[in-house]
Amino acid sequence: MTRTAFFVSDGTGITSETLGHSILTQFKGVSFRQITLPFVVSNETTLETVSQINQAAIADGEKPIVFSTLVQEEHRDMLAGCNGLVMDLFSAFVAPLEEELGVRSNHNVNQSHSIQDQNAYRIRMNAVHFALDNDDGARTRAYEEADIILIGVSRSGKTPTCVYMAMQFGLYAANYPLTEDDFDDLTLPKCLIPHKDKLFGLTINPDRLSAIREERKAGSKYASPRQCDMEVRGIEAIFAKQSIPFIDATELSIEEISTRIVAQTGLTRRLK
Amino acid sequence: MTRTAFFVSDGTGITSETLGHSILTQFKGVSFRQITLPFVVSNETTLETVSQINQAAIADGEKPIVFSTLVQEEHRDMLAGCNGLVMDLFSAFVAPLEEELGVRSNHNVNQSHSIQDQNAYRIRMNAVHFALDNDDGARTRAYEEADIILIGVSRSGKTPTCVYMAMQFGLYAANYPLTEDDFDDLTLPKCLIPHKDKLFGLTINPDRLSAIREERKAGSKYASPRQCDMEVRGIEAIFAKQSIPFIDATELSIEEISTRIVAQTGLTRRLK
Repeated sequence: MTRTAFFVSDGTGITSETLGHSILTQFKGVSFRQITLPFVVSNETTLETVSQINQAAIADGEKPIVFSTLVQEEHRDMLAGCNGLVMDLFSAFVAPLEEELGVRSNHNVNQSHSIQDQNAYRIRMNAVHFALDNDDGARTRAYEEADIILIGVSRSGKTPTCVYMAMQFGLYAANYPLTEDDFDDLTLPKCLIPHKDKLFGLTINPDRLSAIREERKAGSKYASPRQCDMEVRGIEAIFAKQSIPFIDATELSIEEISTRIVAQTGLTRRLK
Repeated sequence: MTRTAFFVSDGTGITSETLGHSILTQFKGVSFRQITLPFVVSNETTLETVSQINQAAIADGEKPIVFSTLVQEEHRDMLAGCNGLVMDLFSAFVAPLEEELGVRSNHNVNQSHSIQDQNAYRIRMNAVHFALDNDDGARTRAYEEADIILIGVSRSGKTPTCVYMAMQFGLYAANYPLTEDDFDDLTLPKCLIPHKDKLFGLTINPDRLSAIREERKAGSKYASPRQCDMEVRGIEAIFAKQSIPFIDATELSIEEISTRIVAQTGLTRRLK
């Protein structure tokens, strides 16, 4: 059975999507056709949204599920009249908060960007550029500035994790690939030794690694199960010998890897 | 007045944070001390969470605001007994959904990763690597594979936007910096001409650009208002002359820039 799920927002739709995904995940047996409708900011776009939901209701023969973060009362009322099951984030949570805080909420669409947001933008941009400049051992002289340096074999998830930590937490995350040569004597490359307290390891199931590498270079030695197995054993031996904290990324999403690293290291985010 | 806000989750806390931030944004007058408590998965960690909330209640002399995405009933009940105002995402939304769908939700913590999730992980990883490999005009021969190529002056937001589109939407986003030399005759660099239909421009207020560049290279010609003004005029002239769609990134967050580009170009996400 397939249902249509709408994520409706007067902004980007990110909040509505994140919220909706998380809830829909709880219904494994049901398959959802997911549609994001961002920037619903006028009576006209709200009516279009309602009509799109109603069409899906007819096509599916069942109520679409609608996650909404619309703020303006007029638009929320219009949306409430659609033929879907509307999950209205703001009426569920904003009203009780107004009472507790004793202040009215802004009820503003497209919150204007404050100085705080501009600072956040800069912190984020700088952190993302740092992640890119210090990806894959490209540069090691900026390690002084790094909050964390991820180490692991090629395609174990270092790069997306660094980029995510930069984007989400504003952290300065570098990464350095360890290769076969490093596994012989289980010592760390020289450039890493002065920064040993910033090192954090990623490991991964060898079969999974092989599948990921196969997609990049099919049929290569690089992607072969034997090579992957050897590299994973090697890197785990280095983590053990050098007492480097690490996590197994095999069953985790990028969000989970990043959040666990922050929790485990006690790093302080630069972005809240 | 400052309140403590907690984001409580049995997972990474990302949903709880995103939801909570979005709601707290509606209360501009109130300042919130924000604390994320991820991986609350046992009776013990739930009790610790309750105790931390209660301590904040005493310290603040006011109820903390608690956003929770806890799924397990036992833990939700324990949390409900704390001295904070608990916003319980699951009881607000999961129960009505169960009724509408006619199925019980899983009520599972830490959803195991399905094949679909593994595919999503690979799409995301490949897209992030594509963004990095094709950042800042580093490589132009992969433009055939690109979904979109952002152009703009240095530090107008191209890199974080590409990375975000890769991470969030799985899109293959490259970027190419235009410089002074390109502004003379308002033509496009040769490597971009065959891919003109993939080009999308970013522009930015010159004062803002100058402030951002100043942070990178203080006192440089590169960061000077005069240079920034000239470059922004130049790039906007190219966008006009070459009929390239563009947006002004000055007042937008990375999320907003990315979402608007996807909406404007009609690109289909590879990740839902």
